[in-house]
Amino acid sequence: MRRRLRLGMVGGGQGAFIGGVHRIAARLDDRYELVAGAFSSDAERACASGADLRIDPQRAYADFADMAEREQARPDGIDVVAIVTPNHLHHAPAVTFLRVGINVICDKPLCHTLADAQDLARVAQASQALFAVTYNYTGYPLVRHARAMIEAGELGAIRVVQVEYAQDWLSTALEDSGQKQASWRTDPARSGAGGCIGDIGTHAFNLAEFVTGLRVEALASDLSSFVPSRRVDDNAQMMLRFSQGARGGLWASQVAVGHENTLRLRVHGEKAGLEWMQEQPNVLRITRLGAPPQLITRGGPAAYPQAARATRIPAGHPEGYLEAFAQLYSDFADQIEAHADAVPPDPACLLVPGIEAGLRGMRFIEAALSSSRADGAWRTI
Amino acid sequence: MRRRLRLGMVGGGQGAFIGGVHRIAARLDDRYELVAGAFSSDAERACASGADLRIDPQRAYADFADMAEREQARPDGIDVVAIVTPNHLHHAPAVTFLRVGINVICDKPLCHTLADAQDLARVAQASQALFAVTYNYTGYPLVRHARAMIEAGELGAIRVVQVEYAQDWLSTALEDSGQKQASWRTDPARSGAGGCIGDIGTHAFNLAEFVTGLRVEALASDLSSFVPSRRVDDNAQMMLRFSQGARGGLWASQVAVGHENTLRLRVHGEKAGLEWMQEQPNVLRITRLGAPPQLITRGGPAAYPQAARATRIPAGHPEGYLEAFAQLYSDFADQIEAHADAVPPDPACLLVPGIEAGLRGMRFIEAALSSSRADGAWRTI
Amino acid sequence: MRRRLRLGMVGGGQGAFIGGVHRIAARLDDRYELVAGAFSSDAERACASGADLRIDPQRAYADFADMAEREQARPDGIDVVAIVTPNHLHHAPAVTFLRVGINVICDKPLCHTLADAQDLARVAQASQALFAVTYNYTGYPLVRHARAMIEAGELGAIRVVQVEYAQDWLSTALEDSGQKQASWRTDPARSGAGGCIGDIGTHAFNLAEFVTGLRVEALASDLSSFVPSRRVDDNAQMMLRFSQGARGGLWASQVAVGHENTLRLRVHGEKAGLEWMQEQPNVLRITRLGAPPQLITRGGPAAYPQAARATRIPAGHPEGYLEAFAQLYSDFADQIEAHADAVPPDPACLLVPGIEAGLRGMRFIEAALSSSRADGAWRTI
Amino acid sequence: MRRRLRLGMVGGGQGAFIGGVHRIAARLDDRYELVAGAFSSDAERACASGADLRIDPQRAYADFADMAEREQARPDGIDVVAIVTPNHLHHAPAVTFLRVGINVICDKPLCHTLADAQDLARVAQASQALFAVTYNYTGYPLVRHARAMIEAGELGAIRVVQVEYAQDWLSTALEDSGQKQASWRTDPARSGAGGCIGDIGTHAFNLAEFVTGLRVEALASDLSSFVPSRRVDDNAQMMLRFSQGARGGLWASQVAVGHENTLRLRVHGEKAGLEWMQEQPNVLRITRLGAPPQLITRGGPAAYPQAARATRIPAGHPEGYLEAFAQLYSDFADQIEAHADAVPPDPACLLVPGIEAGLRGMRFIEAALSSSRADGAWRTI
Repeated sequence: MRRRLRLGMVGGGQGAFIGGVHRIAARLDDRYELVAGAFSSDAERACASGADLRIDPQRAYADFADMAEREQARPDGIDVVAIVTPNHLHHAPAVTFLRVGINVICDKPLCHTLADAQDLARVAQASQALFAVTYNYTGYPLVRHARAMIEAGELGAIRVVQVEYAQDWLSTALEDSGQKQASWRTDPARSGAGGCIGDIGTHAFNLAEFVTGLRVEALASDLSSFVPSRRVDDNAQMMLRFSQGARGGLWASQVAVGHENTLRLRVHGEKAGLEWMQEQPNVLRITRLGAPPQLITRGGPAAYPQAARATRIPAGHPEGYLEAFAQLYSDFADQIEAHADAVPPDPACLLVPGIEAGLRGMRFIEAALSSSRADGAWRTI
Repeated sequence: MRRRLRLGMVGGGQGAFIGGVHRIAARLDDRYELVAGAFSSDAERACASGADLRIDPQRAYADFADMAEREQARPDGIDVVAIVTPNHLHHAPAVTFLRVGINVICDKPLCHTLADAQDLARVAQASQALFAVTYNYTGYPLVRHARAMIEAGELGAIRVVQVEYAQDWLSTALEDSGQKQASWRTDPARSGAGGCIGDIGTHAFNLAEFVTGLRVEALASDLSSFVPSRRVDDNAQMMLRFSQGARGGLWASQVAVGHENTLRLRVHGEKAGLEWMQEQPNVLRITRLGAPPQLITRGGPAAYPQAARATRIPAGHPEGYLEAFAQLYSDFADQIEAHADAVPPDPACLLVPGIEAGLRGMRFIEAALSSSRADGAWRTI
Repeated sequence: MRRRLRLGMVGGGQGAFIGGVHRIAARLDDRYELVAGAFSSDAERACASGADLRIDPQRAYADFADMAEREQARPDGIDVVAIVTPNHLHHAPAVTFLRVGINVICDKPLCHTLADAQDLARVAQASQALFAVTYNYTGYPLVRHARAMIEAGELGAIRVVQVEYAQDWLSTALEDSGQKQASWRTDPARSGAGGCIGDIGTHAFNLAEFVTGLRVEALASDLSSFVPSRRVDDNAQMMLRFSQGARGGLWASQVAVGHENTLRLRVHGEKAGLEWMQEQPNVLRITRLGAPPQLITRGGPAAYPQAARATRIPAGHPEGYLEAFAQLYSDFADQIEAHADAVPPDPACLLVPGIEAGLRGMRFIEAALSSSRADGAWRTI
Repeated sequence: MRRRLRLGMVGGGQGAFIGGVHRIAARLDDRYELVAGAFSSDAERACASGADLRIDPQRAYADFADMAEREQARPDGIDVVAIVTPNHLHHAPAVTFLRVGINVICDKPLCHTLADAQDLARVAQASQALFAVTYNYTGYPLVRHARAMIEAGELGAIRVVQVEYAQDWLSTALEDSGQKQASWRTDPARSGAGGCIGDIGTHAFNLAEFVTGLRVEALASDLSSFVPSRRVDDNAQMMLRFSQGARGGLWASQVAVGHENTLRLRVHGEKAGLEWMQEQPNVLRITRLGAPPQLITRGGPAAYPQAARATRIPAGHPEGYLEAFAQLYSDFADQIEAHADAVPPDPACLLVPGIEAGLRGMRFIEAALSSSRADGAWRTI
C-alpha cells in the first residue's frame, strides 16, 4: 500500500469551520495525513491550533510563505496544501504554493475578486502542480450519476435547468453579533463583493454546469440585501441562458426562513427529467417521458459506475456531506499519484473541479453583480 | 333549507375537460343544480350533451345568447352561468350574461386578449350581477390558511416569494396529434398569445398574490417554445418584484418532464417561512425563525377558521382538487345568496377571485410577453 | 342518459358524521338523488334533518320499517338505501330493506355482533337485492391498481403483508366529554365488543385481503385499552397468517399520537414489493427485485385500467377520500343497473365489497377478541 | 492534545465488509490509529491485509491469541481491539483480550449462542477493561435526541412502540452464489441459530429499548424462511410487551422487496409521539398531542445537547451511517480516557451499548426462536 499523502493546511485554526470539514474529508478514506499547517496568521493561535491537531511544532507555521519555503525544502515535505482561509486569503497562498510546485486544494469561491482569480488561473496553468477547488457537492455519488446520465444522452437535449440554494442562517444581522462565520462572509473586504451569490450561489451555478455539461452563457439577476445593515447581497433571483439553447432559473438566498441548506437541482430534457436535493442526497428522481418516476438510490440497482465509485457502504445506509467532500480528496489523491507516476489518471478522478471551474465561479459572481447593477440586463459569462 | 341555485353552463360538451370539473365542483356541496346549457356551438352536439347531462331539451341551447335571453325570461331561469369554453370564447358569453343580470363563473384566464378582459371588467363592474373567475387553487384550505397567517402578520414582512407551476404533458408536439386540449391551448387564436404563461403561469401568479396579499409590481421574463412546431411559449422563467420590496421568482413550464402538476409556493418573511405544494395539498410546512418546521394539516390542530371552513372531512382523510374547486362554487353561492338577500356576505366567501383577479392575470400575461420580447426588460403590471 | 338512482338513507341526521360523507359520495358522480330518509329515530330530528336535506316531508320518515314499506309501495320508491347508523343499528334496517327487495349500501363493520352479521348474510344471500359494505379504501384507484398488479402476478408469490391503521383522536377519554363519535364508537352496546379493531382494524384487514387476493387464515392478537376508563380496545397488535403461506403483521391504534389516519399497506412478493398510504393516496410505490423503485401515480403513465376507471381528473391533480368513497357508489350503481337490465355487470364494478367481505370483517373482530383473551393464541378466520 | 488511541482489529481482512466500516468510524474523529491486527486466520491473507492497511508487518498477526499476548507486552501496545469477525468468532477473541486487560469493541450480535454470550458477559464484568458492542444506530444524533426527550418525560407514559427493520438483499438464495456476506450470515454455524432476527432484528430490538428506556419483557414471534434452501429465518413478525405496560410490534425481514435498509421506530406516549427512520436520519418527527407535527433536524433548533454533541457539521448538511458509527468510537474513546485517568466519564459517553445490551440482544434472539418454535407462545426476555 502506498504511503499517505502529506497534507498541509493554511487556515482552519481554532474557531474556524470549514477547516475541520477538510480535515475529516482528508482523513475519511485514509489517503492523507496532516503534517503541517499555517493555521492562523496569529503566531500563538497557529501554535495552539497545531498542538490541537498533533502537528510537529516545527511544522506549525505562523506564515504560509515560510511554510511553503520550508516544506518545499524538506525531503518529507507536504505533497499538497489545503487552503481554507476566508476568500480574500485564497490567492496569495495558492500562488505561493503553486510556484514551489506543491499541489493545492482551495476552498471556494476561488478568490475575492475576479482579477485575483484570473491571476491565480494563470499561475495554476503555468504550474506543474495540480489544483482543485472544493465545489464539494460534485462529490455526491448521485450528482455524478446524474452527470453521467446526461453525458450518455439519457435526458436528450436539455431544455430547462432549475437550481436553487436556500438557507436561513443570515435571516437576521448575525454578523453584528460577532459570529465569526457571519462576520467574514458578509464583509466585502474578506468575502468579495458577492455575499450570498459567492457563498452559495456559486455552488448552485457550479452544480448546474457540472451535471448538465452545459455552460451558462448569460444571466440576468436581481440581487437584494434584505437585512438592513447587511453590506452584501443575501438573496438572488436569476434567469439563466445555457449553451445549446437551454433555459433556467437560479435562486440563492440566505434569508429563506425554513431552509437549512436546500441545494436542489432539476434538469429537464427532451427525453427525461431528474431532480436531486442535497438534504436527501441518497436518492435521485428520474422520470423518462411517458414512464413513472424512478428513484435511483446511492449504491442501489441502476447506479452508474461513476456513482458506485464514490460510494463506501451499501444502499440504504445513508452517506452525507462529509463523504461527498471526502470524495474530492480521494479523487485528488488519485490525480496526484498518477501525476507523480507520470501515468494517465483514471478519468473518474478528473471530476474534481479545477481551476477552470473556480474561474467560472468568479465570472458568475461578477456577471451577477453587473447584471443586477444594470437592473437585470443580461451579462455573458 | 334554501333551494339549490340554478346553474347554466356555456361550453363543457362532449369531449371537453374542464366543464366536467365544474359540474362536479358545483354538485359536491349540493348548492347548485345544473338546469340549462349551451354546451356546444354545434347544435347536434349541444343537444346530445344536454341529454347526457339530463338537461330538459328545451334548455339545451345551441347558442349562448339565445340561452341568456330565454333563461333571463323564465321565472325559474338560471341564477348563475359557468363559462367553460376555450379562452377566446369567454368574453362574449360573460358580457352577455352579465348584461342580463345573471351571475357568472368564468374559467381562467379571463379572456384571450387584454383588451377583451378590460372590456369585460368594465361590464362586470357596471353590472349588478356577481362575477367569479376560477383560480381554483385558492380554494384549497391550506392555501387559505397560509393567506390568513400572512395577513395576521405571522411571517412578518415578506422578503421572498418563489412560485412555480411545472407540467410535462406538452413535452412533445401533442397538438399535432389532434388531442383536443393540446390543440386549443397552444393555438394563439383560441388560447391567447400566451401559452404556458396563460394556462398555468397565471395560476402561479394568482396564487402568489392571493397568499401574500402583495402585488407583483414588475416582472422580467424569458419565454421559450421548446417544441419546434409550437406556436406559443411552453416554458417561462421570470423574476418578480412585489409591493413592499419583496422579490421573487416564477417558473412555469409544460415541458418539465417528471412534473405532473407541480404548483409549489414558498414564502419567506422576516419571522417565518412557509411552503405548500398542490400535489400534496393537505399539508403546509411552516417554519418560524429559530424553531423547527411544523406541518399544519388540513383539518388538524392549528388550522385557521378560514381553512377549517373549507374542509369537509376530518384530518388525515385527504381532500383534493375537486374539493378545492367546489369551495369556490360554495363560496360563490354564499355571495349570491347574500346578494339576493341584500345582506352583507360572510367575508370568507369573498375569497373567491373576482374580476380584478381575472384582469390582473391578463396583465400578467401581457407583461410577460412584452418583457420577453424586450429581452427581459422589466415590465410593470 | 339514464335517470339517477333514487337513494334513501337510514341514519345520518343532524350531528352525524359518516352520513354526510355518503351523501357527497352519492352525489359526486351524479348517479344518485337522495329522495327519502329515516335520518333519526327521534321524529323531530328526522323531520328537521329531512328539511335540511330538501327531502319531501312525506319521505322524511321517523322509522325505517315504515320507510321500507312505503318506499317499496311507491312507483317512484327508492332503488337503494344507505345505512349509516351506529353499528348496532345496521342489522335491522338492512334485513328489512333487503326483504322488500331494496338494494342496500351498509356502512362498516357489518354489524355489532357476529351472530347478527351471519343472520344478515343469510338474508342478503337469499335476497334478489344487492348488497354493498363501504370498505371505502377499496375505492382508491391505486389500491385497485395494486390489486390488479398482484392478480396479474407481477409481485410473484406473496410472502409478507404489513398493514397498519393508526390514529390518535382517542388518545384521551374523549368519550367522557360527550363527543358523539367517540361516545358510540367506544360503547360496546353500540359499536360491538371491538373498539379500535372494529372501527379501523377491519379496514386494515379488508384492505390486506382486497389487495392481495389472499385470505387471512389465522391471527394472534394482543389488544389493549390504554385510556383508563375506556371500555373497548384502543390498540391492537397482531400477527397474521395468510393463505398460500404468506405472513404478516397488523397494527391498529387510536392512541398513536402523531397519526391522523395512517392506513398503510406494504406487500412483498418474490418478484416485487409495493407500498401505499392513504394519506398520500395518489402515489403507489413499486419496486421490482433488482430495479429502482417506481412511483405509479393516479392517472399517470402505467396506471392499470382498473385504476384509470376510478379516476376523474388528470394526474397531478389529487383526488382523495371522497372520490374513493364515491367510486363505491358509482360501481354499485353499475351493479344495480346491470341487475335491473338483467345483463352481466362489468366485472370492474364488482370490486365493491359485498356481504362476504362484511362477514369476514366480523369474523376478524371475533378472532381478534378471542385470540387476545387467550393470550395471543392463534385463531382461524 | 492527547495521543490517539492505539487500535487493533480482529477480522476485517480482504473481502470483509464491516471491518472497513469500523476503520472509517475509528478514523473519522481522529481519536484512534490502527496499529495492529489479526485480520485473517489465514496467515498469508492476514499479512496482505496488514500491508494494505499500512500496518507494521510485525503487528500483522495470523492469530488473535498471539496478538493479544504480544500487544499486551509492548510498551506501545494497543489500547483497544475491534472484533469484526463473523458472530461465531466473537467470543474467543473478546474473552482473550479482556483477560489481558485490553478494551474491546465487538460487533453485534454479541455471539452466536446465548451460552457464549453469558460466558463473555461474566468475563467482561470481571475485567478491568471496557467493553462496547456496536449497535451503531444508537450513535445517530436524533436517536439520542429521541431518547433524551423520553427520558425527560416529554412523551409521557409510553403506550406503543412499533419498530421494524426491513431489507431485501436476501430475497433470493444469494448464499448459494458464494456471496461472502450472504454465506456466513445464513449459516447457523457461523451466524447463530437466528438469521434475520440476529442480523437486523437485534438492531431493531436494541433501538427500541435504547430510545424508550423500557425493557421488552416478553415477545411472541412467528419466524419464516421464505427462500426455499435457506437455513435460517428471513422474516420475523413479533408482538412485544414492554415494561410499564407498553405494547409493540416488531417486524424484521430480509425478503421485503423495495426496502434497502428501512429501520424505522415509532414511539407513542400519552403526551406525544415520535418517528425516526434510518434512511432519513437527519430528521425526527415529533407530534405533541393536539399540536401539529414538528420536524426536529440534526443540528437544528431544538436539538438536545445529547444530539448536538453527536453532530459534526451544521444543520442541512446530512450526516449518515458512518458518522453515527464514528460516534460510538468517539464516545468509547472518552470512556477509555476517563478510565485511564481514573476520573468519572462524561455521562453522555456512556450511551455506547455495552455488555448488558449485547447480552439482551442474545436473549432476544433466543426468545424469538423459542416462541416461534412454540407457535408464538409468549417468551420472557
